[in-house]
Parts: sequence; structure tokens; C-alpha cells
Amino acid sequence: MLNRVSMRSLSAFMIAAAVATGALFVLVPADDAVGQDAAAAVLQFDGDTLNRPVLGSWRTWPFLGTPLTPHDMNKGKAPFPEFHHVYIDPASHAHYSQTGKFREGTVIVKELVLVGGKKASSGRGYFEGDYSGLEIAHKSAKRYPKEPGNWAYYSFGHVPPPYSATAKAQATESCATCHESLADDDMVFAQYYPNLRAARPAGK
Amino acid sequence: MLNRVSMRSLSAFMIAAAVATGALFVLVPADDAVGQDAAAAVLQFDGDTLNRPVLGSWRTWPFLGTPLTPHDMNKGKAPFPEFHHVYIDPASHAHYSQTGKFREGTVIVKELVLVGGKKASSGRGYFEGDYSGLEIAHKSAKRYPKEPGNWAYYSFGHVPPPYSATAKAQATESCATCHESLADDDMVFAQYYPNLRAARPAGK
Repeated sequence: MLNRVSMRSLSAFMIAAAVATGALFVLVPADDAVGQDAAAAVLQFDGDTLNRPVLGSWRTWPFLGTPLTPHDMNKGKAPFPEFHHVYIDPASHAHYSQTGKFREGTVIVKELVLVGGKKASSGRGYFEGDYSGLEIAHKSAKRYPKEPGNWAYYSFGHVPPPYSATAKAQATESCATCHESLADDDMVFAQYYPNLRAARPAGK
Repeated sequence: MLNRVSMRSLSAFMIAAAVATGALFVLVPADDAVGQDAAAAVLQFDGDTLNRPVLGSWRTWPFLGTPLTPHDMNKGKAPFPEFHHVYIDPASHAHYSQTGKFREGTVIVKELVLVGGKKASSGRGYFEGDYSGLEIAHKSAKRYPKEPGNWAYYSFGHVPPPYSATAKAQATESCATCHESLADDDMVFAQYYPNLRAARPAGK
């Protein structure tokens, strides 16, 4: 990742190049260009309370995969109902693509979606209906120095939007214990996320 | 959408502002800033033959939804095996978010993923394994003046990556007929894509 000094030098060089060539460029804040603002925009804390992010702000982030745990395969009450749309903030995706590591500050969003139907022109199966819940995983050694892997897990409920207004970090045994023992990659269930595995650099 | 002249004026103004304030900005090509290059990068034609896009270049595009048609619910042979990851090019997503319409040049990518397992710590269900196919829908009145809705459909096969090297537009009756009669929104199956419905402006 370029540091601020080299980014500034690069900006100066590119401005000069743009002026010299008349090339059509636009300027965007550096943090937006690498997506750092995207994670910050979703992480609005009051102390240790996480406020619900602006609805849908994560839906254009890099998508990782969609596990499905339907009610009808879980005795009518799936723990996570039912499709799980999983996203990662853009800058942490870029970092993972280069290093194979989840950086300090990584945000992973899981938005739940109910099953809307089981038959379509493409065949029998499971087809998505309406949103049904929102959960966020956040990796921060600064905020969670004692949590396994420095990950904390927040749930805004398994409810329709706009979801609960605030969330506190879940108790370690509610989420982290399972993630720590069963998830493939630094407490992230990479085994269910083909787009995460594909983004990983060779040999990492 | 800003036109090229006003974009250029804006660039000049922002360069001056950046120089004056010492703000940290980076320059990106204007087409990238609005995502127009993303669609063009995926659409490499030789005449009427579409070349396979650079692998994975669509996986950071806005994600729309994941229909699932598993083999085991389709007599062992699903027509589209099995999860369908569906994406739209960024500029067309922005246009749809403003207008509720698919603009000329819209690219929708469907990447298929096999079921990798049916049990996880989150419950019983369907969990994603490896990639299994690639299909692209392209709306262009210029290229397909006689096709319904000016959409054409390409398949790079239901095979593991790197997928087939080239594809020709499918016959109208192979894809378009079904999309035309059953899909909710300009031949796109919006009824299965919660992120597309959510992006639609109110009242559109």
C-alpha cells in the first residue's frame, strides 16, 4: 500500500502529466480511491456501540459468496435466515488480494435474505425474496485487543430493514468461538466464499 | 451524467483546488471513475464473437443476487449448475440507480458455482464450492437491433475456469424468449435479485 507521502508525490506527478497531456482525468479523494472511506462510513461508533450503517451502503462492495441455510432444512427455524450475502470493504479486499491477509480495520458485512420461492424458469431450487437481517464482523487490534484474532461480531437483528438501530459486540462465545475453531482463514469462513479464495494471491 | 467538456472543466477546477489546498487527491481516468471502462474491458469482440473476459474482472462489480438451482433438486442435472452469482457493470448500476432503466451497453454477468457441501456450523443448507460456468447478457440496440429488448445472451459454457475461450450470441429462442415472457424488468429477472430491486429509485 502506498503511504501518504508517496501518494502525494504520485498525485503531483499525475497532475503534471494530466496538465501536460490534456488527458481526461478526474480527481477523487485518495481514501475513496482505495476504498478506505467505505469501511469508515459503515463503522459509526458511539463508544462501544455500533450504529446501523446507511442502508445498502455495503451492497456495491466486493461480494464474497452466498451460503444458504433455509428454514425448511433447519426444522423451520434456521439460525441465520436464510441466504447470507457476504461482502468485504473495498480497501481490505485490495489488501487481501495482494497479501492474502485481513488487514487491521477489515469490515465484513453479512446481509440476510429470505427465500422467496422454490421454482423458477431456470429449475427447482431456492430463489431470493426480501432482506431479513444484518451482521458485521470487524477486525481491530486497537478496539478488541483480547478477542481471538481481534475480530468482533455485531448483529443488527434478524429482522426486515431498516434493521435495529444499534448493536454491541457479541460475547466471545456467541460467535468468535465457532469462527475460531471452524473457519478456514483467520476466523473467516473462506471455505464457503469462492470469490475470497479466488482473490487470494498464489501461494498465500 | 457530466459530459466530456464539463468533466474537463471540473478536472481543471479540482486540480487547481488540490494544488491550492495541498489536499491529498489521486487522479483516475474519468471512464474508470464512472465505471464505463469496466463494461468495455469485459466486452472484447472479434466481429460478432465475444472473447472470454479476463478471469474474475467482474467479481468486484455490484452484485445483484444468487439464485440457486442445485443438481439434487433437478433430477441430478440442473440446467444452470448450481449457484448463480449475478453482477452488473458499475456504470450501468449507477444509471439504473438513478433511472430504474437498463442503459444501452448494460452488461450483466452470471457466474455459476457448484454446491460444495450441505452442512456447516451455521446449519443445514447449500454451501458454495468451485466455479462452474460463465454467461453474459448484453443490451445494445446498435449490435442487436432485432433482438427483443436489444438483449443478447452469451455462454462460455458450464465448465470450470478458465471457461471456453469464445462465445457467440445464443439463438433468440434459447434465452431471450424465456427472459421476455417471465422476467420482471426489461427481460432481467429482478424478482430474484434483491439488490437490483433495492437500487431502483422510488416510484420507478
